[in-house]
Parts: sequence; structure tokens; C-alpha cells
Amino acid sequence: MEISPLQAARKAYSPKLPAALRNGASVNVIKGNPLPAFADTEKIAALFPTTSNMPDLTFAAGNGEKLANPINVGVILSGGQAPGGHNVIAGIYDGIKSLNPASKLYGFKGGPSGLVDNEYVEITDDFMDAYRNTGGFDMIGSGRTKLELPEQFDKGAINAQALGISAIVIIGGDDSNTNACLLAEYYKAKNVPIQVVGCPKTIDGDLKNSFIETSFGFDTASKVYSEVIGNIARDANSAKKYWHFIKLMGRSASHITLECVLKTHVNLALISEEVEAKKQTLSEIVDNIAKMVAARSANGENFGVLLIPEGLIEFIPEMKILIAELNDALAKNAEEFAKIVDNADKLAFVTGLLSPASAAVFSSLPDVMRLQLSMDRDPHGNVQVSQIETEKLLAELVKKRLAEMKKAGEFKGKFSALTHFFGYEGRCSAPSNFDADYCYALGYNAAAIIGSGATAYMSYVSGLTKPAADWKAGAVPLTAMMNVERRHGADKPVIRKALVELDGKPFKAYAAVREEWAVKTSFVYPGPIQYFGPAEVCDITTETLRIEHE
Amino acid sequence: MEISPLQAARKAYSPKLPAALRNGASVNVIKGNPLPAFADTEKIAALFPTTSNMPDLTFAAGNGEKLANPINVGVILSGGQAPGGHNVIAGIYDGIKSLNPASKLYGFKGGPSGLVDNEYVEITDDFMDAYRNTGGFDMIGSGRTKLELPEQFDKGAINAQALGISAIVIIGGDDSNTNACLLAEYYKAKNVPIQVVGCPKTIDGDLKNSFIETSFGFDTASKVYSEVIGNIARDANSAKKYWHFIKLMGRSASHITLECVLKTHVNLALISEEVEAKKQTLSEIVDNIAKMVAARSANGENFGVLLIPEGLIEFIPEMKILIAELNDALAKNAEEFAKIVDNADKLAFVTGLLSPASAAVFSSLPDVMRLQLSMDRDPHGNVQVSQIETEKLLAELVKKRLAEMKKAGEFKGKFSALTHFFGYEGRCSAPSNFDADYCYALGYNAAAIIGSGATAYMSYVSGLTKPAADWKAGAVPLTAMMNVERRHGADKPVIRKALVELDGKPFKAYAAVREEWAVKTSFVYPGPIQYFGPAEVCDITTETLRIEHE
Repeated sequence: MEISPLQAARKAYSPKLPAALRNGASVNVIKGNPLPAFADTEKIAALFPTTSNMPDLTFAAGNGEKLANPINVGVILSGGQAPGGHNVIAGIYDGIKSLNPASKLYGFKGGPSGLVDNEYVEITDDFMDAYRNTGGFDMIGSGRTKLELPEQFDKGAINAQALGISAIVIIGGDDSNTNACLLAEYYKAKNVPIQVVGCPKTIDGDLKNSFIETSFGFDTASKVYSEVIGNIARDANSAKKYWHFIKLMGRSASHITLECVLKTHVNLALISEEVEAKKQTLSEIVDNIAKMVAARSANGENFGVLLIPEGLIEFIPEMKILIAELNDALAKNAEEFAKIVDNADKLAFVTGLLSPASAAVFSSLPDVMRLQLSMDRDPHGNVQVSQIETEKLLAELVKKRLAEMKKAGEFKGKFSALTHFFGYEGRCSAPSNFDADYCYALGYNAAAIIGSGATAYMSYVSGLTKPAADWKAGAVPLTAMMNVERRHGADKPVIRKALVELDGKPFKAYAAVREEWAVKTSFVYPGPIQYFGPAEVCDITTETLRIEHE
Repeated sequence: MEISPLQAARKAYSPKLPAALRNGASVNVIKGNPLPAFADTEKIAALFPTTSNMPDLTFAAGNGEKLANPINVGVILSGGQAPGGHNVIAGIYDGIKSLNPASKLYGFKGGPSGLVDNEYVEITDDFMDAYRNTGGFDMIGSGRTKLELPEQFDKGAINAQALGISAIVIIGGDDSNTNACLLAEYYKAKNVPIQVVGCPKTIDGDLKNSFIETSFGFDTASKVYSEVIGNIARDANSAKKYWHFIKLMGRSASHITLECVLKTHVNLALISEEVEAKKQTLSEIVDNIAKMVAARSANGENFGVLLIPEGLIEFIPEMKILIAELNDALAKNAEEFAKIVDNADKLAFVTGLLSPASAAVFSSLPDVMRLQLSMDRDPHGNVQVSQIETEKLLAELVKKRLAEMKKAGEFKGKFSALTHFFGYEGRCSAPSNFDADYCYALGYNAAAIIGSGATAYMSYVSGLTKPAADWKAGAVPLTAMMNVERRHGADKPVIRKALVELDGKPFKAYAAVREEWAVKTSFVYPGPIQYFGPAEVCDITTETLRIEHE
């Protein structure tokens, strides 16, 4: 396997650990008070009789004592890629070896299905070393199979126990960690001697709470996006003739978009949570953008950059209703729709199935978008929201609006738009120094949790704006992060997704300056992630964390 | 102006200079033999009576002597942005100050039009320092106005002389440097005491010859693209379910695409020059990709990455003919076409205007593409080739082809494609150490050319795979790089665009391994540009140069 010079140089990097882990993963455990679920306490307690109301754990450095017996551990990468996943595995590996050098780590391949289907690989020194400080999940692969059925849990137990595995670490987002908790409860209730520990992963940044300050990968991914956004902003400011409409990954939460605007100071970041809270219509959003374009144009600046979160469209109330109606109408009339050949006839047919309000919204959209909404459907017949080119839709509608404003004498400039979508560029970047350290610490700490005998906990490391040595290490019960939500018509226990809070410090910090940034060119160009230079360039984490901790 | 921590740290970077310039821009000049134009010698000599058949100049370090009088110089950024433009200006600035500290540098704003319209700014120490080692052309702006008319030259002379300017440096690509030569010839023939010097800029990498080893910006831009291509490749190799079709900027030449595949070892890079030379049809190209997808799928790998140069479509013979016919037919029938309302009717009308061969090609394209080709036209009525989403076209056609192969039992896997276009992300990145040094040296060397009294020369610095101190510095007559080409029905002297040579070393290096890379996953992940780390990570230039110098 040929590797790049940077990858070769990064092999030598030793991730930093919190002081609590400096003598290995055998730690002194300080128990907190029992923590109930943060909402729907009784329901969660009833659903998780053996794993709810457990105390949080805080770790202090041990004396380096080894365990009498080795521990075999299985690790699973679940869901979308995030930078640093391999370092979590490296942390677990080194952590369990510190507990007992004969401990073994098995990687279940291709995500949670690997546990059920018994697809695994034993992780050896050489294999592990080839992946330290690298991006991607290619070491053992990932997958989106949901672990939620007793049959899966039983098969998993058989497969794990055949390998002598007494603990499983699941590296995933809110859903995967919810399922980790179901698995832990199942095993504990049935006295299956397998601990389950979770690690908080997702570039979206929406797995966070009072213990989990950030999910891993968010730092690196938002730095990659900010690099290219900054480059594009500098290009806009040099060429002075284009508006760049940039869509960013992040289906539910707008943390990435918020972080990127805080890093780059571009003219506008739409925040889905605000659009929903203020019940902004598509036409209001378009109006606001058009006014900004006109205001900048009046200053002679016919260029700019704006950021759009991937999931925006679903947060616009009238679009949400339209999409729901489309899903319903097209599911019921699939056959008839399929028979229509001509595109114009298709659109007329679809429009006739909608409520008057939704029909009006639908008719206001450009042709291409209407066809996309009617024809690009997933196997369940649903509109594929992630395929909707919101950036092109907005650029098109703003152009139309500006043409009207021009006629009315409200806009005298030029408008030319270019669109971009960034997502896959950031998920597998080599982790920043922060994510390399944070992930390694999360994994090493997971080994400490395993060593302590606990199950149904999530590994946490906090105080992240301080130097790594000052980070706190501990474990939070998975049930403590849960509430009950209505999903597909049934009550389900879930770890709550953390959306952007409109009264939170990061959003307020943006809200305080956004009017100035909209009109005045205030771009900042972060440049590429640096690994070797001065600390203020290489080791600082996100603006979001900085502002939250201020 | 708030700047990022990286930008602040980069301010401290001192670009390296060749030994010839170590004692300032006052150098010893070694004259070579008179160099005729490399082709059409007599025609060029006739067109450039005072500036053709001049010797190339090689510089050796001087003794640091100052000029008796200061020199005022004007600088112009021409055409598309390229990383390092500000460092060329910094090099000129420091260079003319080394000749005489009272020398002044003026920046003409917004490109060549700044000279004609007398839009300028005096560059002071503070102003210069704010832009050292930064990306973008925002310091003085750029533009695409062509300097080619005597009226423009005359106005420019008046404006320049009002500022006491006796030399103009034009930083641009092949066209801009062609015009720099026209300007130099005009002034010299008329005894206007203004020297003109060119500097080779373009991320496309197509301004190169035996003196100019590479144009500046190519190194940085291709590193930015390779970073994100590598990240996407790692994502593909982790998720194992997508084919990524990535289009890269570079309208005429495929140097960027070739460089990026040499850096990342992704499965396929289409090279426009090869497509043209082999007269490959669109359907052959699609077939080849589909076969690669099927071969990888047979190995269980339903994923991959391929690179497409932006200008590909114009190099496919039948598409070139189709586009020419469309341009012609729609220009002649614009009014009638505009009256047609229904899209299907529009397409039928257009098809009827084409030759049978082109009509067949046109009909084989997806609807969206046919509408794009018929409706998205520039102000001259021409198809906007740069707007054609070739990456989507190919993905769509490959999908169709694979569906046929599936029916025939030749493909049993899955195919799901995602598309990307990278261009604006790379043009304004902060320059790599290489481009920071190279650009500064080119600018400083331009000052040396000015100090030597020469005009109609391009600044060159060569031996670029060696350490900067060992680089050779000199000047090559602009006329020596020219030939005569047919443009818009007339013979024009132009600096020849350097396309990818199919018998050149870089292409041959790729051709030797591409069958393996196509089928076997051999991805290399270059990661982001590094400025501060080990030399093998930070200071190495392109694979193209490395292979050419091997």
C-alpha cells in the first residue's frame, strides 16, 4: 500500500491523553449520583430496568496496575464516516493492552452487521499501526444496519463469545448509541457477560449534551469545508463577479453551517432551526437573499458567498407540507403517474393531487426542481430530500426575484450565481490534531470503562478547549441522554439530537454580527488544516466550542 | 481586516530566492544566442520587427550595486486567479527596492483595463506586507480585458508616464503574455520608454516550454484538488457504495487532471488530448467506464473514483461537430426557436436542424443535457461549454449502459454515482511553499529584467525540482514562444498552449499503471497542503515536474 508523504509523517504523531489516563486504562473510578433520563424518566426507567438511573463515572489516574486476565474486545464503526474513527480504535487497542498485554481487539467488518454475520478481523500491531492518525473508516468498514432486534442481539452474543469477547465498543451517532443501549440492556438483563460502551461520532455535531461537548469528526470536517469556503470567498473577492451558493452536509442540524460561517465570515448562513422557529417561507428566504445582493450591489460589490445547510428544505414549513403531500399523493397514484409520458403532463397530474396551498408552492418552483420532486424517489416512494439541489433552487429563485426588483428600480447591479455542495470532501479527511487526540482519548477511555466493569455507558472526554492533559475523562450512562420520541407512529427511546439552539451562545454570536457580514466584505480565509506548525494554527478546535466555553 | 491564525503565521514566511538574486535584483547578465520564434519564424519576425530574434538572458549574482535612479513600475494581474499572484507582486516590490530604495510600484486595478482607464494604487510597505504569502488576486484585482488595440496602448502609455512608470509587468497566461508582447513591440517601435515584462501564470499548467517549466499556481491548485479527491476516494473506500465522477477545472489542457491522478491513484482519469488523438466517441468512453465498473464489481468493489477534465466534451470529435452545428443552427433560427413553448417541441425542432449524424448523437443524450445544449447560450448564441455538466452526463450514460449490461448478464453489481466539480476551490488558496517561493522569485527576477533594461521578455526561473537556491534565473524573449495560429478566421501570433503530450513522460507514467489502478484499489491520500512540517511533506512540487525531470 503506497502512502502519501503526509500520511507517512503523520504515522509518527503521538496523540495526547488526559492526565487521568497517563498511567494506562486502569483508573480510579469516582462515582457520581444516579442519573435519570433527562426527560420521560419513568418511561426510560421502565424500558431499561437494569441500565437506567446509573451514576456517571469520573476517572482519576491509577497506579498502572494490570488486570489479572486479558480482555477481548470487539469494535464496530456504525453509520457515516467521520475523521478520527481509526484513532478511536487505536485508543481502545492501546488501552486494553495497557490493562493486560494479552488482551485482543477484534474489528467487526462493515458496521453492526459484522457482529450479526460474524464478519471480523483480529487487529494486530502492524494492522493497527498502518491506520494510526489516518482518516476514513476503511480499516474495518462501516455500515448502516440497525442493531435493534433480539435475534440480532442473540447472534451477536454467540459470535462475540466464540471469540472470547466480553465487551463491545460501538462508535456511532445518536441512533447507533441508542441501539448500543438496547444491546447493553438486553445482555445485562439476560446475564450475558458482554459489556457495551458507546463513543460519540458524527461530523454533524448533533450528538452533544452536558457531558459530550462535541462529537468527534465535527472539528476536522468543518475545517475542511471552511478551507474550501475560504478559498471560494477569496476567489469571489478577487473576481468580483459571482455569488457562490454553497450547500453543506448536515441533514437535521445546522451546526456545520454555523461553524463554517463563524470561521469564514461569509455573507450569510441560513440556519434551518431559525427558519423553522420563525416559520420563514421560501419566498421570505429568497427575498432576504435578494435584498442582501441588492445592498452589496449598491456598494459596488456584485459578489458574495452564502451557506445553506443540506436539510434546509425540510425546515421550511410550506416545503415540509408539500413534501409530505407529494409522498402521500404519489404513493397512492404511483401506477397512474408511471403511465404518463410527457413531463408537462406529469407535472399537471401531480399538481392536481395537491392541496391548493401546496399546489401554489409547487407551481412557484422551477421546472427542473418540480420534476426532481416528482420523479426522484427512494424505494419507499419518498422524495429524496438529500438529492434536492437546494443551492440551485435558491440561486434560481433569487435570480428571478432580482429581475423583478430590477424592473421596479430596486436593483441596478449584476447577478451571476455559481453553486457548490460539500459533504464527502470532509468525512474522511485525516483528523486534525484535535480530532486525532480527542478520538484516541475517547477510545483509550472506552478501555478504561471496560476495565472498570461498567456497561451501557458512553465514553466522554471534556474540557476540550484546554490542553489535552487537562481534559477530564469519564463515562455517562447512555440512558441519561435519552428521552422518548414519536417515530413512525410509535413511542421510541432515543438519544436526543442536539439541534442549533437559537438562544445558545454560538448562534447569538453569529446573530450579533451577521448584518454587518451580509453587507460588508469581512471574509476570513482559514486555509488548510495544519499538523506541524505553531499551536494557534494547529491545535485549536472549533469556534463553536470556543464560544460555548467563553 | 481580521485574518486567520494560519494567515498570521504565514506572514512570517520568507520566500526563498535563487542564488542569482541573492545580492538583489542588480544582476550580471549573460546573453545567449538570438532565439527565433519556435515556429512560423518569418511571420513572427515580420510582426515583431523590434522584439523578435532576441537572445535569452541568464542571470548571475551581482555585487549589490544600486541604480543611480529609482524605477517606477506598474503591475497588472490578468485573467483567472492563481495561487501566488500576490507573491509575484511582493517579489517585484522587493526587487525594485533593491535596485533603488526610492523605486515605486503601482498596481493597475481590475486587470489590464486598469492601465487603460487609469485605475491604480501605489503599493506601500504596509499594503504589500498585508498580502505576502496570501492567496487570491484581491490585492489589486484582475480582469479579462484584452490589451490589443493601439488606442489602448496609447492610453496606457499616457497613464503610465504620468506616474513616471518606465516598466510594466503583466502577470498572466498565454493570451495575456501574447498581448504583453504586442504592447512591448508597440512601445519599442514607437520609442516609448516603457519596458514590458511577462510572468507565467495559470493553474491550468498549459503555459510551459523549454524555459518555462511550469506556470505558477498549478502546484497549489492541483494540491487543493488532490486533497479533496483523496478525501473522497477514502470515503468511497470506506462506504464502498458510490462511484464519484469528479470534473476538474481546465478547459483546454488536461494537465490538472493528469497531475491529480498521479497524486491520488484513483481509478481513471480521462485525458482530453488522448480522446481527441484516438478519436474516441462518447459511446466508447462510456463503454470503457462501464467495463471498469463491471470489472471492479466482479471483485466485490462497487465503488470508485474517476476524474474528468472540464473541457473533455469539446475534444470528443462527434460532440465537437454537434456543438458547432448547434451554434450554427440556433444562431440562424434563433427567432423561430424562441417562439416554441414546449420543451419537447423545442428539442424536436433542434433535432430537425442537425445533420443525420449529429441528430443521432443529440438524441442519445439525456433530456436535461439536450435542453442545456439548446437553451443555455452565451450572448453570442454559442453553447456554454463550461456550463455543461459532463460529470452528470457521463454518470447518466454509464448507468444506462450498465443496465443494458445487466440484462445481458455482463454486470451483476450495483452502481450508484455521485458527481462533483472542483475549480474555484483551488484558484485562490494560499500558495504552497513551492508557489510562494517560485512566485516571489519570478517577481524579483522580473525586477532584475527591468534593471537590465530589457523589454518583451518573460521572467523565468528553472530547475524547479532542485532546492530554490539552485534554481536558475533568466529571461526568455516572448516572441521565442510564439507561432501563428488561425483564430476567428485570421492569422494571429500567439504563445502556443502546451497541451498534455501523449508521448511525454507524465502521460506515459500514467498510461503504464492505469490498467492496474482502474481495477485494483490503489488510492493514495495526499491530505491538505502543509506549510510548516518536514520538507518531504511541505516543499515538494508536482508529480508532473518530478517525472519530467527524472
